[in-house]
Amino acid sequence: MLFRKAARQDVPSIVQLLANDKLGQLRENYTDPVPDAYFTAFDHINADPNQELIVVENTEKELIGTLQLSFIQYLTYRGGVRAQIEAVRIREDVRGEGIGQKMIEWAIARARERKAHVIQLTTDKQRPDALRFYEKLGFNASHEGMKLHF
Amino acid sequence: MLFRKAARQDVPSIVQLLANDKLGQLRENYTDPVPDAYFTAFDHINADPNQELIVVENTEKELIGTLQLSFIQYLTYRGGVRAQIEAVRIREDVRGEGIGQKMIEWAIARARERKAHVIQLTTDKQRPDALRFYEKLGFNASHEGMKLHF
Repeated sequence: MLFRKAARQDVPSIVQLLANDKLGQLRENYTDPVPDAYFTAFDHINADPNQELIVVENTEKELIGTLQLSFIQYLTYRGGVRAQIEAVRIREDVRGEGIGQKMIEWAIARARERKAHVIQLTTDKQRPDALRFYEKLGFNASHEGMKLHF
Repeated sequence: MLFRKAARQDVPSIVQLLANDKLGQLRENYTDPVPDAYFTAFDHINADPNQELIVVENTEKELIGTLQLSFIQYLTYRGGVRAQIEAVRIREDVRGEGIGQKMIEWAIARARERKAHVIQLTTDKQRPDALRFYEKLGFNASHEGMKLHF
């Protein structure tokens, strides 16, 4: 398994991963070619040193996972930086093999490397398995994750 | 009430607000002068066009509230931008006057203006009043907010 920053040519494969998901299929638009909006979004992410869009490759150089790690500077916690994980997806046929755990452990190590004081995420209450998965990795469900969609 | 982006000279007043809080007093360090780490953090926030550290002034130009609004670009939701609210504080002597509601309504309007598709926040489960407050403003506690502190 190799972790690396996503390149522009990875965008279609990433979108395919995002769309192949119970909740993701309702909100993504995976077509060939993928809509330009995804490439525009990639360019914004890629130009921002506080954003790391990560892909995971297997030994055949196939893209089997993705996550986005954001580093957000606040005044709180004496001027601390928070790491935030979002958009975690693993290719359907390799789920249940421990890849997710390795991805989150990688993200935790990366957050420590960048001197974040906390790493955080929100997980949909419709994914009870995800809650248990993150708890096993040391996350504490101390907060309510609240959303207002426009 | 006036909403504006924070300036460097507001940092001590903002830190005072952050520290004057049940949970905040455990993690902030409000001294005179305030530690340099807060100014360094302010400079990072201020240099980033995706971060808006906001202060609220009353008619006497006193600083009575603060919040930070972050705009985070993702590939998810067809290349959507999320707005995220953090570090909301209101000066103790003016709480219960509807200022918090106006601040969150301001943040919602600002998020729409910047074309975010969702506005989100996490609130500590130790603050049940805050949960009800955000629900009244239209937020849905659809997610678990998970943290791992280093």
